[in-house]
Amino acid sequence: MMYQHGGDYWNYPDFIDFSANINFLGAPKPVVEAARSAMDKACHYPQPDCLRLRQAIARLEHLDAGQILCANGAAEIIFTLALAIKPKKALLIVPTFQEYEQALKSVDCEIAYEYLLERQGFLLRELPAALDASIDMMFVCNPNNPTGTVTDRRMMGKLLKRCQETNTLLVVDECFVDFMESADGTGCSMKSYLNQSRRLFVIKAFTKTFGIPGLRLGYGLSADAMLLQRMRACVQPWNVSLPAQEAGIAAAKETGFLVKTRKALKEEKQFLLEQLSLFSSEDKRGFFIEVYGHAANFIFFSSILGLSELLLEHKIQIRDCSNFPGLLKGWYRIAVCAREENERLIQALCQIRQTVNQKEGQIWTKRQK
Amino acid sequence: MMYQHGGDYWNYPDFIDFSANINFLGAPKPVVEAARSAMDKACHYPQPDCLRLRQAIARLEHLDAGQILCANGAAEIIFTLALAIKPKKALLIVPTFQEYEQALKSVDCEIAYEYLLERQGFLLRELPAALDASIDMMFVCNPNNPTGTVTDRRMMGKLLKRCQETNTLLVVDECFVDFMESADGTGCSMKSYLNQSRRLFVIKAFTKTFGIPGLRLGYGLSADAMLLQRMRACVQPWNVSLPAQEAGIAAAKETGFLVKTRKALKEEKQFLLEQLSLFSSEDKRGFFIEVYGHAANFIFFSSILGLSELLLEHKIQIRDCSNFPGLLKGWYRIAVCAREENERLIQALCQIRQTVNQKEGQIWTKRQK
Repeated sequence: MMYQHGGDYWNYPDFIDFSANINFLGAPKPVVEAARSAMDKACHYPQPDCLRLRQAIARLEHLDAGQILCANGAAEIIFTLALAIKPKKALLIVPTFQEYEQALKSVDCEIAYEYLLERQGFLLRELPAALDASIDMMFVCNPNNPTGTVTDRRMMGKLLKRCQETNTLLVVDECFVDFMESADGTGCSMKSYLNQSRRLFVIKAFTKTFGIPGLRLGYGLSADAMLLQRMRACVQPWNVSLPAQEAGIAAAKETGFLVKTRKALKEEKQFLLEQLSLFSSEDKRGFFIEVYGHAANFIFFSSILGLSELLLEHKIQIRDCSNFPGLLKGWYRIAVCAREENERLIQALCQIRQTVNQKEGQIWTKRQK
Repeated sequence: MMYQHGGDYWNYPDFIDFSANINFLGAPKPVVEAARSAMDKACHYPQPDCLRLRQAIARLEHLDAGQILCANGAAEIIFTLALAIKPKKALLIVPTFQEYEQALKSVDCEIAYEYLLERQGFLLRELPAALDASIDMMFVCNPNNPTGTVTDRRMMGKLLKRCQETNTLLVVDECFVDFMESADGTGCSMKSYLNQSRRLFVIKAFTKTFGIPGLRLGYGLSADAMLLQRMRACVQPWNVSLPAQEAGIAAAKETGFLVKTRKALKEEKQFLLEQLSLFSSEDKRGFFIEVYGHAANFIFFSSILGLSELLLEHKIQIRDCSNFPGLLKGWYRIAVCAREENERLIQALCQIRQTVNQKEGQIWTKRQK
């Protein structure tokens, strides 16, 4: 399997990375320090049930520690869910994060696809027709990666209601929800419905919000104790490393950091959106950028073919989204980064626009001759 | 699922831990430092294909980097193997490490058991009768955990030959092989057969030899590129954390540490074995300890019922093996630790012997009255 995600630091170590959706503030110092100090105890196995970490997350999320399952990144939650449930048929709303599909395929699950359409702003506007009793589970990434769009609370409520009728597990991936501006980022979160429905499963992670993708730390939330039990039976007892557990315990105390993050993100996103709007072009002749969703810490847009390759020449990585099912070439995703990096991106885009438009101009002139 | 392994530091933080089979020298400094320094880059995803780590392991193991798959501990290799193969029926030689069974059950696999018997010294003396064409895969832990016994190279060769006839994948867990004295610890390793047979899969780990169970780092070795590909499709691309990858790269250079480990282990094991032999008792009246296997860095023995509880009163943890399928109460496992700790254990055993024998003496006297 080819690596087809963003964040390929290891092949481009000296590039500016807009391709991974990580908090540009980086990890809070106490989080990094907790992980470093944990190495003093690395001669011990990690706590097998992550009890201390779950208690810390429980306080952060205002849930019961028994409703939390920790994992080696949110991705492990996704794979473990698929293995624990072994769905015969599942529904994906695409384009979306690709690990859902990989996880479902690992258990030979049939997959139905509901396509989010450009002409509908990549929004889920109706209940998917395929959502019937044959669907054992479905995934909704909200805010959605890579489109940056949000399925609003009303539609999420309708989805959950329908899932209860069809006995479908509704898995809502909220890894980006804490980046949202509205109501402390919980504006679209389904967390508050957990105690009302065992058909709901929420996935979250510290990876992106606390800037520690290298450490791997995600968690699942569910009021279905039996499901969590089945998931624990499908994974080794030491799946969350000691540094990740300690970093998570430290991170759960850093609620102020999330407030700070949303404030900084709002400013930088506004800057980027304003700058990107200057590349807008109605007739899409020459160089152009058309921005779509940007509800989380990244911006989804369409532009000329080959933009990501052109930016590599400027030592800038962005995410070419053409390998997402449901997207063609010309779709891209950039993380919101710090001001200096954002400015470098805009400069590079200006230079690319100039080169592209000059060439196009020459071609245009030639054709007219 | 109840936690049923050794190494429960988190419930007994100030106890001497003989229950986990970790190298008592602890991790080499450069390994710990590499993991700590890795936190400087924790804002990046780990290298998804572990290329640098695999190259380092390839040099250590004298294999090709393409024949190596890294994972979040050896336990993840076991679960991923089960998921990639989805065996209908598998064979386990028990008592043995319990994660094989858990992993097989996670994919609803039927399990046949071959029992190692006390009267045969817990040794596999013949090809298991159950090993026929119905068996898709089998696990052999060598040296075996918890019995400390070794299936010799001749028997391993016969097993592999039979597995080729029956189209069975022979998974050999060699997590403890580098602790063995003979021929740099490779005396019983099947590694050299990898290039001759795609029916052979070898599991190893840095966890125990390099004293970093908290970090989680294991790997699988196979010449079957298709199998490794299928395994990669069953697991997230960022399964090995950045600190674990960097620690592994540092560890792979520490070949001298393994030599030093075997030397120190030999001395301490000899000390413990000599001391434990003083508790031997032919009639098993009163307190007794009868040592069985000790090929790796741990010692397997039988003793009075309730010994582990009695040792807890001395702030010492050992591994009660009664929850291993194929073992009854009265079987225990201790890791070889450093001299001071080993002496503390022996002292505690002496005190327990005194108490137990006094009581037994009183009962005996009473009965004779």
